[in-house]
Amino acid sequence: MKTIAPVLPDISRRARLQPASPIRKLVPLADAAKRRGITVYHLNIGQPDLPPPPEFVKAVKNWNKPVLEYGNSKGDFRLISKVIRYYKQELDVDLREENVQITTGGSEALLFAMMAVAAPGDEIVVFEPFYTNYNGFAVMAGVSLNPVVTYGENGYHLPPEEEIEKHVNSRTRAILVCSPNNPTGTVYSKKEMEMVAELCRRHSLFLLSDEPYREFIYEGEFFSALHLKEMEEQVIVLDSASKRFSLCGARVGFLVSKNTEVVDAALRMGQARLSSPTIEQEAVTAAFDIPPDYFKKMAAEYKKRRDLLFARLGAMSGVSCEKPEGAFYLMARLPVEDAEDFCRWLLSDFSLQGETLMMAPGAGFYATPGAGKDEVRIAYVLSTDKLERATAILASGLEKFGGR
Amino acid sequence: MKTIAPVLPDISRRARLQPASPIRKLVPLADAAKRRGITVYHLNIGQPDLPPPPEFVKAVKNWNKPVLEYGNSKGDFRLISKVIRYYKQELDVDLREENVQITTGGSEALLFAMMAVAAPGDEIVVFEPFYTNYNGFAVMAGVSLNPVVTYGENGYHLPPEEEIEKHVNSRTRAILVCSPNNPTGTVYSKKEMEMVAELCRRHSLFLLSDEPYREFIYEGEFFSALHLKEMEEQVIVLDSASKRFSLCGARVGFLVSKNTEVVDAALRMGQARLSSPTIEQEAVTAAFDIPPDYFKKMAAEYKKRRDLLFARLGAMSGVSCEKPEGAFYLMARLPVEDAEDFCRWLLSDFSLQGETLMMAPGAGFYATPGAGKDEVRIAYVLSTDKLERATAILASGLEKFGGR
Repeated sequence: MKTIAPVLPDISRRARLQPASPIRKLVPLADAAKRRGITVYHLNIGQPDLPPPPEFVKAVKNWNKPVLEYGNSKGDFRLISKVIRYYKQELDVDLREENVQITTGGSEALLFAMMAVAAPGDEIVVFEPFYTNYNGFAVMAGVSLNPVVTYGENGYHLPPEEEIEKHVNSRTRAILVCSPNNPTGTVYSKKEMEMVAELCRRHSLFLLSDEPYREFIYEGEFFSALHLKEMEEQVIVLDSASKRFSLCGARVGFLVSKNTEVVDAALRMGQARLSSPTIEQEAVTAAFDIPPDYFKKMAAEYKKRRDLLFARLGAMSGVSCEKPEGAFYLMARLPVEDAEDFCRWLLSDFSLQGETLMMAPGAGFYATPGAGKDEVRIAYVLSTDKLERATAILASGLEKFGGR
Repeated sequence: MKTIAPVLPDISRRARLQPASPIRKLVPLADAAKRRGITVYHLNIGQPDLPPPPEFVKAVKNWNKPVLEYGNSKGDFRLISKVIRYYKQELDVDLREENVQITTGGSEALLFAMMAVAAPGDEIVVFEPFYTNYNGFAVMAGVSLNPVVTYGENGYHLPPEEEIEKHVNSRTRAILVCSPNNPTGTVYSKKEMEMVAELCRRHSLFLLSDEPYREFIYEGEFFSALHLKEMEEQVIVLDSASKRFSLCGARVGFLVSKNTEVVDAALRMGQARLSSPTIEQEAVTAAFDIPPDYFKKMAAEYKKRRDLLFARLGAMSGVSCEKPEGAFYLMARLPVEDAEDFCRWLLSDFSLQGETLMMAPGAGFYATPGAGKDEVRIAYVLSTDKLERATAILASGLEKFGGR
């Protein structure tokens, strides 16, 4: 006689905790709006509108191997040598093959790094607001994020050492920083980075430094964690080709560390998943051969966008935000009670001459319950004329929505 | 005054436990052999030598979008519709979008499934020998594998229900099967699959069914877990484009389940990593349009290879193995004390007319310490003439190595 399961199995606690991405969870509403014929300006996601380098496209089109083999688990060695050359040219940092693991996007670099330094139950200190997917990777890794709040009035710069130190306890394994910051655009100074390093040394912590936006600097000066003194064994840099080369869909990232035990652990995780995509790795290898002024041109374009967005937001009554120093995001406080409701309403119930916009609700960028409720993250990844239009829609939407 | 870290931080326990892949850990020795001018036949990895479908190559070459965007986190919807069509045509299973999550290779489908059903500390029952990377994913997920041994003399078929049930305890969350099996080539019968289903119903467990080789059947009949009655909420199928279309380097896989809570959890994990590679998804979408006899031709080719390999191994003194019923692997017991030593020796100290071969040491396919020490996994992914040559090298190597 066949048994009927007395109780159907439930998904794991981890799976229940796994957050929906605040950047993506409103996508079905955007899709519905598009089906109604409405144009949606996507300011919700760090998806630049810039074309991939022609070197990349050419390599894709010329792909011509008899067999589409798994790549090496560590990554394509020609790509690794380009990464090493890039770190030398851009940061004057000397790397060897043993310091680099190619990952399937910066996403996988983050997941591998968290898993390499922390076991289930351990903690990692982060600065709020933070890149929302840190939450997702932490849940997958069974790790808790211990958030230290940063404030707009302070340009989202780091609080004093003592304040951060309160969040360090016996379970803490690492401090995770992102500069230039997603979602605030803040660029941490050398002094701030050294303060974090000092805490890491004092408490024997790893320093995870998420640096995919290092070429996009508009104010201040970028300081890489790889330049910190006496931190070689503790620094793990997470990096990505996605933003630098406008290659988001290629899913090629890098984990970089002078601590070869960490890189070796990442390699063993990489062996479990066999390899990153072969063709995309080959094509990203070619992308590294872009002319040297490519990054400057890109940064100049984003600066124009930032300036326009910041000016338009500043002119809106009740809206406040800090001027981003780098990357291509900002957090804006809106004169609404619940920014997620407002974002939903923009997609479902509002349009201006057949157009509307999508933003990422701010609460998802905080771990503290209730924080960021009146905020949105805006990615300035569209051309200035589109941004002009999108901000006009935002202003009109805010007026119509009122203080609800 | 700058502090020197009193104790440098150590990598996590999980990272220390993370196993090196037995399929890949001898790669440096193979690379060294190649640098010495030696040809290495790769029987260590399930990397077929067959070309990708022309439809795939054409789609890659024709890729032509202004921006290489992130894909949808769930996967490319045109690809999902092809997956749905394929499951209808091949298995007569009706799926909807809500039943499918596109993953970055079957690897990610396995990781997501383990994480969706099990939390750190939970257990999953597996059958030894098993696909070695189950170990890697389990360590990443903080989950323990509870291995049930299967034996060559029984064709690696499943032991009686009572035997399996002994491995189910209060922490058990799922039973994981792979049919056609990697590494044994065993195809589980309908009766065996129903026995596992009965256990899952009785103990409220998920049934994870890893089915990337379902088209490669030489004896017996394939029975998919999706055909089990009254198991719709408990079955999760892991699948991949890698072997079916000879597209290993594309890294496109599928998680399929009628349990939409599971698929939704996988989607939320997918949102954390943003998307699978865009170009490769597009091209795999095209690959699904291969002519209907493609799989039959492929299976016929692998059957020829199996027959040759089995015959040659059978003629070697002291070597024993079972005739695989499907997939393209077999486990062979060798007349050596330590098969890993032998595999290393073949790469480092032996060659026959400038050629040698690489196999995967068997111990890595077991969780039980000491098990599989005299075994190797052989992947018959090379043409019959190359297999002919590789088996001649193996015979000569065994003779020279002796019973060490």
